[in-house]
Amino acid sequence: MIRKIKNPNPVLWENLCQRANIESVDLQAIVKNIFDKVGNEKDIALVELTARFDKVELKELVVSEEEIRQAEKELPQDLKDAIGLAYQNIRCFHQAQKEATQKIETMVGVTCWRESRAIERVGMYIPGGSAPLFSTVLMLGVPAQIAGCQDIVLCTPPNQEGNIHPAILYSASLVGVTKICKVGGSQAIAAMSLGTETVPKVNKIFGPGNQYVTAAKQYAQTLGIAIDMPAGPSEVLIIADATANPIFVAADLLAQAEHGEDSQVILLADNEQIIDATINEIKKQIEQLPRQNIASAALQNSKAILLENIEECFEFSNLYAPEHLILAADNAAQWTSKIVNAGSVFVGNYSCESAGDYASGTNHTLPTNAYAKAYSGVSLDSFLKKITFQEITAQGIKNIGHTIEIMAAAEGLDAHKNAVTVRMQKIKNQ
Amino acid sequence: MIRKIKNPNPVLWENLCQRANIESVDLQAIVKNIFDKVGNEKDIALVELTARFDKVELKELVVSEEEIRQAEKELPQDLKDAIGLAYQNIRCFHQAQKEATQKIETMVGVTCWRESRAIERVGMYIPGGSAPLFSTVLMLGVPAQIAGCQDIVLCTPPNQEGNIHPAILYSASLVGVTKICKVGGSQAIAAMSLGTETVPKVNKIFGPGNQYVTAAKQYAQTLGIAIDMPAGPSEVLIIADATANPIFVAADLLAQAEHGEDSQVILLADNEQIIDATINEIKKQIEQLPRQNIASAALQNSKAILLENIEECFEFSNLYAPEHLILAADNAAQWTSKIVNAGSVFVGNYSCESAGDYASGTNHTLPTNAYAKAYSGVSLDSFLKKITFQEITAQGIKNIGHTIEIMAAAEGLDAHKNAVTVRMQKIKNQ
Repeated sequence: MIRKIKNPNPVLWENLCQRANIESVDLQAIVKNIFDKVGNEKDIALVELTARFDKVELKELVVSEEEIRQAEKELPQDLKDAIGLAYQNIRCFHQAQKEATQKIETMVGVTCWRESRAIERVGMYIPGGSAPLFSTVLMLGVPAQIAGCQDIVLCTPPNQEGNIHPAILYSASLVGVTKICKVGGSQAIAAMSLGTETVPKVNKIFGPGNQYVTAAKQYAQTLGIAIDMPAGPSEVLIIADATANPIFVAADLLAQAEHGEDSQVILLADNEQIIDATINEIKKQIEQLPRQNIASAALQNSKAILLENIEECFEFSNLYAPEHLILAADNAAQWTSKIVNAGSVFVGNYSCESAGDYASGTNHTLPTNAYAKAYSGVSLDSFLKKITFQEITAQGIKNIGHTIEIMAAAEGLDAHKNAVTVRMQKIKNQ
Repeated sequence: MIRKIKNPNPVLWENLCQRANIESVDLQAIVKNIFDKVGNEKDIALVELTARFDKVELKELVVSEEEIRQAEKELPQDLKDAIGLAYQNIRCFHQAQKEATQKIETMVGVTCWRESRAIERVGMYIPGGSAPLFSTVLMLGVPAQIAGCQDIVLCTPPNQEGNIHPAILYSASLVGVTKICKVGGSQAIAAMSLGTETVPKVNKIFGPGNQYVTAAKQYAQTLGIAIDMPAGPSEVLIIADATANPIFVAADLLAQAEHGEDSQVILLADNEQIIDATINEIKKQIEQLPRQNIASAALQNSKAILLENIEECFEFSNLYAPEHLILAADNAAQWTSKIVNAGSVFVGNYSCESAGDYASGTNHTLPTNAYAKAYSGVSLDSFLKKITFQEITAQGIKNIGHTIEIMAAAEGLDAHKNAVTVRMQKIKNQ
């Protein structure tokens, strides 16, 4: 059960913010072998590795149009409607992240601006396992679609019948994925990094995965492929005051805890009653959960911490830098300016994390493991490059030229200076 | 001299886009030793390593107020004025990158938005060596200042007298650097990653450096420290039509070539005259350059490629994805929509790259080595995190709740579903 800690000395806070030790096995050698094999044998390697790891002999690595049509038929209408509504909300929020080009004349004749261009080829990895993570297909696919990425490749492991869950296929088709490949694990990351006969080489790879997938994404980075962000176990931190509802708080903590035994769950409160009431509620609610063993294990590493006041709660939270931060209070909106480090924030008693996980519109691909101190979650920008432009007229170079000459000379770069001088001379001679 | 290639077969383009082989010595072991030493011995290690590599015994690692005042006195007024003007232009362009918070109601009662927060502690590395790169202090410091980073740490190696170039100190003071430390090489990166008695541990490290610094930044990433971007030798690609000025084109190619022997320089043109005229001009101009040996070596790997037409030039350029792209033509503005991959673009005959290197306002920290296919240059965003928020009312959860329940159930995450159900029940019972 979650551990209760009362008013810990601030010198202990850093320690309380430590994530459960992630076993850092060095998988680089294993992953390198997979990359070498996929690089040499390409599709043949993918078929062989899929047979070995996913226990299925594939005749065809690519999902067919027929399989996608079939998925649409199979999927219950209420799930299709739910996916459709989530799609609309995610689209609405990410569409608003588009920026208009803004030309800035920094000096007369010197105009600077930025233009966005889609990353041409992106890959997304969707893990297999117990749950079909079609919500992640939406979270990565919608901004890729809005950005206008040319190729959107999806890799996901097939089941032992060689099939992909219909909700994944349906969501992929909705977001305009251009190719779905039945390949999982680090071999999928290798294929998207190197390219094979059927899996296109991409410029950037997104998506969650186990430790092999994470190690493979790190390895891909050394080959010049960009990745979304470093990955770690999912986390929630809840700040609750006396107006919080312990039933809701308990449910939100358990929602996080059911993700995995390594999930991180923290409750901060300025009064002990809410902590005790929440712990009682957890005990009740956990009994009903199909994944209660996982949740129970995750709660072993979890903490409910009583602090002096709400200010202290935010100091602690900013030090922890949680992936998800829930503000469980009636008047939570007044607190938002106190937040410095967090991935995504849920403001008020009715803003549950599962809303953001699925359907409110915000992205659920977020920085874990205190990376929120330096990283943002996935957004439209994750699928774009912003190219800077400058257009300098003859008048502009007259205005700025001397400055450049002086600075270039002071840095000992005479050819840099000369590139200005030849232009100034030409203007003078006109 | 630059190699002239006429209408290469498109199957060869990929090959022509290859960067000169960068010697990829594995420096990880060396760098790990430095990190271990700095982690264990902290400031003592820094003093010892500075004595070893920079040949000076430092009494004090931190630059004093007095040294900064002295630098301001020493620096010639025209250089101070030039730095001041560049500062204003860079500030003007980066200030415009601030985004207003925009609240989006994706459904009635479901409001989502993003808020920017400065990364609290950032570090910048400024290399030593032949040239004092004070321009990089401006390029990294100005956006850090606008973002409002709390700690802006600058590390740069001292000269053999234990001093830092006054232009670096003056620029650092202008952008509000909070601490300047006399430490260079991979030990500087280690110090900012781990923290020592005097060098603060930072969340993100920026700045150029030699192969040891680059390897150290990669290593820092494995410890959870963010970095600006992967680094490689600087590059320019120029697209010239008949209206280009060969004197300007030659000067711009040489400006890039003088950076280092590994600099990458490419000229694309749709007519042979401009290529031949440019090569003649290079021969003339290179004679005058103090760094002609470096430029000459860089030109050995460089190519002037004649292509069928301007369309082909842009196809090639997008495949190459240059750090700097110069459009050398009278009517270059009409071409900008053809650009897909580039770091920064210089539009028209008077837009020389050195303008962007120093003073036009755009940032000069840009993706090299074809990283422009997936990465943007440094901008205000590089110093910010964008936190997503959502505020859901009772009405909102009524509108979106059922959708979340269906999706969570389909992913097999019942506690996620329950976090909504307990709220729906509460509303029903009210």
